[in-house]
Amino acid sequence: AATEIVIKVPEISLKDLKIQTRGADLSVEINPVIKKYVLELSSPLLGNNLSLEELLRRRLEEVYGLYGTRMGYEALKQLSMIWADLQPNELITLIIWDGKEILSVERGDTSDNLYGVAVDIGTTKVACFLMDLNEGRVLSVSSSSNPQGIFGEDVMSRVAFAMKGKNNLVRLQESVVECINRLLDDCCEKAGLSNEDIYDCCVVGNTCMLHLFLGISPKSLAFSPYWPVIRGGVNLKAGEFRPTLRINPNGMIYVMPSIAGFVGGDNVAVQLACNCFVPDKSVKLILDIGTNTEIVLADKKGIAVCSCASGPAFEGMHIKYGIRAVSGAIDMVSIDPKTKEVRYHTIGEGKPIGICGSGLIDAIAGLINAGLLNKNGTFNVIDNKINRLRIGSTDKWEFVIAWGNETNMGKDIVLTQEDIVEFQKAKAAIHAACKILMRKKNITENDIDRVIIAGAFGEYIDPSNAIITGLLPSVPLEKIETIGNAAGTGAKMVLLSRELRMEAEKLAKRVEYLELSADPEFAHEFVRSMFLK
Amino acid sequence: AATEIVIKVPEISLKDLKIQTRGADLSVEINPVIKKYVLELSSPLLGNNLSLEELLRRRLEEVYGLYGTRMGYEALKQLSMIWADLQPNELITLIIWDGKEILSVERGDTSDNLYGVAVDIGTTKVACFLMDLNEGRVLSVSSSSNPQGIFGEDVMSRVAFAMKGKNNLVRLQESVVECINRLLDDCCEKAGLSNEDIYDCCVVGNTCMLHLFLGISPKSLAFSPYWPVIRGGVNLKAGEFRPTLRINPNGMIYVMPSIAGFVGGDNVAVQLACNCFVPDKSVKLILDIGTNTEIVLADKKGIAVCSCASGPAFEGMHIKYGIRAVSGAIDMVSIDPKTKEVRYHTIGEGKPIGICGSGLIDAIAGLINAGLLNKNGTFNVIDNKINRLRIGSTDKWEFVIAWGNETNMGKDIVLTQEDIVEFQKAKAAIHAACKILMRKKNITENDIDRVIIAGAFGEYIDPSNAIITGLLPSVPLEKIETIGNAAGTGAKMVLLSRELRMEAEKLAKRVEYLELSADPEFAHEFVRSMFLK
Repeated sequence: AATEIVIKVPEISLKDLKIQTRGADLSVEINPVIKKYVLELSSPLLGNNLSLEELLRRRLEEVYGLYGTRMGYEALKQLSMIWADLQPNELITLIIWDGKEILSVERGDTSDNLYGVAVDIGTTKVACFLMDLNEGRVLSVSSSSNPQGIFGEDVMSRVAFAMKGKNNLVRLQESVVECINRLLDDCCEKAGLSNEDIYDCCVVGNTCMLHLFLGISPKSLAFSPYWPVIRGGVNLKAGEFRPTLRINPNGMIYVMPSIAGFVGGDNVAVQLACNCFVPDKSVKLILDIGTNTEIVLADKKGIAVCSCASGPAFEGMHIKYGIRAVSGAIDMVSIDPKTKEVRYHTIGEGKPIGICGSGLIDAIAGLINAGLLNKNGTFNVIDNKINRLRIGSTDKWEFVIAWGNETNMGKDIVLTQEDIVEFQKAKAAIHAACKILMRKKNITENDIDRVIIAGAFGEYIDPSNAIITGLLPSVPLEKIETIGNAAGTGAKMVLLSRELRMEAEKLAKRVEYLELSADPEFAHEFVRSMFLK
Repeated sequence: AATEIVIKVPEISLKDLKIQTRGADLSVEINPVIKKYVLELSSPLLGNNLSLEELLRRRLEEVYGLYGTRMGYEALKQLSMIWADLQPNELITLIIWDGKEILSVERGDTSDNLYGVAVDIGTTKVACFLMDLNEGRVLSVSSSSNPQGIFGEDVMSRVAFAMKGKNNLVRLQESVVECINRLLDDCCEKAGLSNEDIYDCCVVGNTCMLHLFLGISPKSLAFSPYWPVIRGGVNLKAGEFRPTLRINPNGMIYVMPSIAGFVGGDNVAVQLACNCFVPDKSVKLILDIGTNTEIVLADKKGIAVCSCASGPAFEGMHIKYGIRAVSGAIDMVSIDPKTKEVRYHTIGEGKPIGICGSGLIDAIAGLINAGLLNKNGTFNVIDNKINRLRIGSTDKWEFVIAWGNETNMGKDIVLTQEDIVEFQKAKAAIHAACKILMRKKNITENDIDRVIIAGAFGEYIDPSNAIITGLLPSVPLEKIETIGNAAGTGAKMVLLSRELRMEAEKLAKRVEYLELSADPEFAHEFVRSMFLK
């Protein structure tokens, strides 16, 4: 009974994090990989020599037309225990994976209860979405920062940590699994369910996060040719997985396929959420901006993807007063081109404590528009004798965004010359990667029909400012869309639909991957892209 | 590289047990289900976007023509760790199950080391045979009594125990697995191997023993229609199995298929050892005599099997001075038809402490030949006024086999009237079952080309005495063969040969099972068969 529904993630309020809990709306035909089948096991007849397991599989054929199932070991044990005191006419419910393997046997008709969880492991944040697989509804959401952060802020430092000590890989895996377990407990508590009710868990994340989740050494990602250990989707019995993931031990874990060492299952999920598997004549450019930015260019001839290291500037790192998009972060900035006066907005509307990615982009766009920055990114101090533009403590120029008397800590919040360079490097990497991808596919900015910004970050940036800074290609504003946490949406999609899971596997295989580190043009293009418009 | 070899179990001396360590000689083409493949994983080339796992599977295709393999989760983890410090040109060895699943990855070329274990779980005894799967050689053997005996002597009392308490099934499973683990340790120590070297474990046993080994409730065996929970062969990853079986956790456990609730994997193994899978025009009657006796009748039209409860008399139970075939057991008896004097032989040739199954058969045949027993099994006290035939402590007649001054404990060893009845019931069950099976297949004693006695017990009985007592059908002596522990031999066969494993699965499905409890003729035939010749 497949029904068409709209996945709509409920708006929930998180105290500190503004991001990662909104998803795109998408139509998905509900047909989960794991389903329940209710049967009556009437008493077998003498003379007809069989086993309980065969009787049960025959009933599946008769009642559901389900042929060729096999019975898992744990399900066999359960069947033997249930049979031991089964009442006449009592119903049993089978939990079956992909119409093939009987994972579990439950007493009575439990078909109304069928739950799964979509897990999005980001380098900095982890989110869990508990879903009703009958109705396709998100029941509860829980997220937290990725505890692996204490071992290394970004992917490469975690790879380095994993390689340093014998037990480090185990520590990395245990910390993320323990984090997911806490989120699962929280989701279940919110929804009034038990962890044992969860029979399916779909995990997305970048290639390194997925390796670490699986306890697979990511060392090969550190060295050319940056190959992952595994790219294909991984299906695991929860009971086989160590350390324990707190879902039903007879349930399944599905790890999204990856495309390459630095284009992971999260990007496959994004492509899925952007309907890239549907034949389409339009030209789509999809950017998932983060410390590592994945860029997808899809046209009727196919899909190409590349990845570039864009640094953590948009997450507030390596920026003097940079912070994440938490309460107190300046998330919007405008600079009056005439007076050079600054207006800003903070998350939570309190006194500012720093500036986050979207504020940074606004500020730089403002500085450009106000003629405060030269093309090479240096401050135009000759034309702008204003007290906001001053020489800072390190004898370099800086621009005051918020005066000390306005801020929470009583100190000026400034953008330094180093901050500008940090931004330039990030936008240059993304800009150069877009250029090369477009050149490779023989596409110009004018050919692009849609620019889709995935990731929570994209939702909060001002597209016109992003274009002004050169971060986004110069397309009409109406062509730009944001879709929020599309990776999480993709995870929900494969949780709800067997067909979409197959599409994900196909996508991962057919997407053309462009390795930029091998492309001599990239370095040239990167240097050219350092310039501001 | 399949080579033809002869499995010859080395003669080893067991202190106490005379049985269960000799197997039949059989030609088996060595082609184990688990094999090793050695590869060089030369450095991948840039630009050719793949994963290590794909590279490895491609090499398998190129070097070995092995297509469509999949990689197990644990093997992936191992590959990632080995890759992390793999030297150029260093070899790796893959352990692959059935040409399909890569179970494990080892450093270097370890192809010379490939080991498996055949396990025979009897109701009273457990035996392990450690084998070199390259050479098809048994490296060491270890056996012990089945510790489940403390929970119940026979199959039905263990089923009852399993049903009595919630934790009893677990206790039964743990006790047999712990026993096998001790035998494995012992086998490995004798052969100078580590338990981790064992990648395959083939388990045979009766249906109940296999259920208990797997931790599957045997309750359904206790009630009509006596169906098992599972009949088909079970393939399990050792790492999935609980409690831990001490072989390589990435290795496999194969549990032999069963035919019915009381015709188990041990009988399939016996049929395998008797070459029942080979088309053959001769008529074979195979008896595996024990507490439960399985009888197989094979002719060109097919194979039929039935099972009967023959009681533990042959194992010395329910017989006043009955003991197992241990040191000090009277295992051979002859009675002079004229003088009625008794001669006997004991295992180990010391003073007797009791009488075992083969001695019991000899004694009864001797009593019959000497005219000491009436046709109905009572002692012929009228014609025999001798001091060996006397009224015992329970006011019933008894026959003295050994006088107190000859025995170890200084007490007479006698056969009581109850002992005779106990034997009559056992032989009547077997005799009646044979009759009905033969009638069903329209075969007379004259049509039988071979009578094969399987099981350790069979090796020590005197066939002519067994015929005299009516235990075996009346066929010329040269048609009777004994093949020792054929169940163990069958287990070794499926350990060494993928093809024979498939034959076992096919045999288990195609054999016709006769349920005697449903056959009204059986009760009649049983009563008739109580008479001695």
